[in-house]
Amino acid sequence: MEFWGERPFLIKVTKMQFDETPIGAYKYELDTPILLIDLDLMESNIAKMADFFRSVNANLRPHTKTHKTPIIAHKQIDASAIGVTCAKLGEAEVMVNSGIKQVLIANEIITPLKIEKLTSLARHADLIVAVDDEDNVEHLSKSAFNKGVNLKVLVEVDIGMKRCGVEPGEPALKLAHKIEKSKNLTFAGLMGYEGHTVTIPDFDKRKYETEKSMALLVETKDLIERSGLRVEIMSGGGTGTYNITGKIPEMTEIQAGSYVVMDAYYKNVVNEFDCALTILSTVISRPNKTTAIIDAGIKTMTKEFGLPLVKGIEGVKLTRLSEEHGNLDVSKSEIDLKRGDKIELIPTHCCTTINLHDKFYGIRNDRLETIWDIEGRGKVR
Amino acid sequence: MEFWGERPFLIKVTKMQFDETPIGAYKYELDTPILLIDLDLMESNIAKMADFFRSVNANLRPHTKTHKTPIIAHKQIDASAIGVTCAKLGEAEVMVNSGIKQVLIANEIITPLKIEKLTSLARHADLIVAVDDEDNVEHLSKSAFNKGVNLKVLVEVDIGMKRCGVEPGEPALKLAHKIEKSKNLTFAGLMGYEGHTVTIPDFDKRKYETEKSMALLVETKDLIERSGLRVEIMSGGGTGTYNITGKIPEMTEIQAGSYVVMDAYYKNVVNEFDCALTILSTVISRPNKTTAIIDAGIKTMTKEFGLPLVKGIEGVKLTRLSEEHGNLDVSKSEIDLKRGDKIELIPTHCCTTINLHDKFYGIRNDRLETIWDIEGRGKVR
Repeated sequence: MEFWGERPFLIKVTKMQFDETPIGAYKYELDTPILLIDLDLMESNIAKMADFFRSVNANLRPHTKTHKTPIIAHKQIDASAIGVTCAKLGEAEVMVNSGIKQVLIANEIITPLKIEKLTSLARHADLIVAVDDEDNVEHLSKSAFNKGVNLKVLVEVDIGMKRCGVEPGEPALKLAHKIEKSKNLTFAGLMGYEGHTVTIPDFDKRKYETEKSMALLVETKDLIERSGLRVEIMSGGGTGTYNITGKIPEMTEIQAGSYVVMDAYYKNVVNEFDCALTILSTVISRPNKTTAIIDAGIKTMTKEFGLPLVKGIEGVKLTRLSEEHGNLDVSKSEIDLKRGDKIELIPTHCCTTINLHDKFYGIRNDRLETIWDIEGRGKVR
Repeated sequence: MEFWGERPFLIKVTKMQFDETPIGAYKYELDTPILLIDLDLMESNIAKMADFFRSVNANLRPHTKTHKTPIIAHKQIDASAIGVTCAKLGEAEVMVNSGIKQVLIANEIITPLKIEKLTSLARHADLIVAVDDEDNVEHLSKSAFNKGVNLKVLVEVDIGMKRCGVEPGEPALKLAHKIEKSKNLTFAGLMGYEGHTVTIPDFDKRKYETEKSMALLVETKDLIERSGLRVEIMSGGGTGTYNITGKIPEMTEIQAGSYVVMDAYYKNVVNEFDCALTILSTVISRPNKTTAIIDAGIKTMTKEFGLPLVKGIEGVKLTRLSEEHGNLDVSKSEIDLKRGDKIELIPTHCCTTINLHDKFYGIRNDRLETIWDIEGRGKVR
């Protein structure tokens, strides 16, 4: 610090020392563990995916369950995405409140309270919602009618994932007509998520299984259109199948989400996107020559898809995660790690890891450029 | 609602309709998925554990990494706990800010920024911190000296868990003397966590392995005391070993945390405490006769210790959790579950499940009594 004259309140700050997260700081100066997003890599992922969708009939409607962060959704839309896909009503509220007007809730909204919220939210955005049940259609219609709003409705079809959805064919046809006849609802099309194929590592096998599944959705579309209804929207796909499902001419929109930041697990499936998401941690103990302990555990990064990978240091491997600690095997490390050294890790499941954190710390050229609130974190309702 | 006279702003509300979480509501009226805590069971767990500690030499210093919630910590202290144990500095800040003055940070605080925060926090509470390194002792001493505060310091000893900590015996002795000679630090004793034995299901095997581990800590205590230093604090133990480690005469405090709400995994280890924590969810789809889909997935309840258990309905079993959905096998269900029905689940890991949520919804006799902010959620730094 440099004092100007004799008045101590007039200070020229030459180095920021009293802010934990100074914009412009070198990333290794940040307090750990901390969720970093490499902005160059994220922007490149967004651009690559946008490029792909310029070459096919389908559009991208990226899933916000991955990042849960409005500014990232807006960047995806700026790059020509047609809106967003959300997993939960609470996520959709966050996105609508941030000014996004085209929102697909790729889920069933069942309870009276949530239906009330959904039709209220429909005053502020063009909402599309999935259904797989006739009673639900009646409840949605009644609430939409009472408020004088219109909802677009997709019939969710189970194309092999065995979760929500009606069977392909006749059951979907029946439900489509039920929707079309319901006041204040518009039958808009079909949704089928091939969640059981998106992470098959071998591309040819993934393509074969995906096309087999999506054929069920296309056949159902044909059946419904032969009955006189228009199927405007055909929604499905994920990061692992964007270039398979996305090339099927009948598909109109793809719900890929993870591509925007990627993770070590998905990187084995689709190598063309880069891992923009890392956890920066600190070595807090060196109990012996082969072990280093870091300050990040499963409350910082999830492990349901395997242990995160160490980035940038040869021969160092994460071997265990407890709640707030990670054990590193450093027996083959190229460098002698010391207490206080920083370790960067690549998560294995971006969606659940991001959901543990309140903020993204945006890094460019190893410096902190911006901090973003993960506003949708914890919005499970 | 009943109107009083002709003035519409004078309304006698006979049924609350416009609050999502009305105190007094029947629990099944609450929006889902939602984290419930059964207050009677939690209070009974606190009382049972307090009873145990009246019968032994050791005291209880419960770990807040489980609940991360000040009011629960205060209830534990009201029932005679001698303070709290925290995993992270950020958790300790939450507890101190809530008025708690006796705080053990059962972890190493390494980086300059965190050491600054630690010694600042020491102005507002009596802090005890763990160390396993001589340089760290010097850094702590320098910062404490500069601020004119005193820190109590425990030597962490690795008694078999293979995480942080020095080896038992001479290395611990050497570090103890280093602390005692350091300005503004007081060598207060030893910490050894038998994390590798706390969940051994068989009691006799658990007792054998625990006593073998804790003997290393007791021998180290004897060595240090023979050298002329007093070992005031002997800290260790968890919910699985409270009645093993807690009975060792040399131990002075036990760090059990999970007992306060329990989970299905720990229930197999220590049956005497009750599962007070549940997730209330809603059936959102019945795709076929054998399957029901609920609105809770791994963003609502963790699965690293196995899938959560369905409570209160015979023959219904959770078979899969994706991010925001759970699949139930209802083929042997005693009742025909319908869309909109509520399903209560018992988590398998209370600590990580609570860390996904912003609030506890406190239930007594099936009615909502109180809502508590989980203020320590996400405090990984």
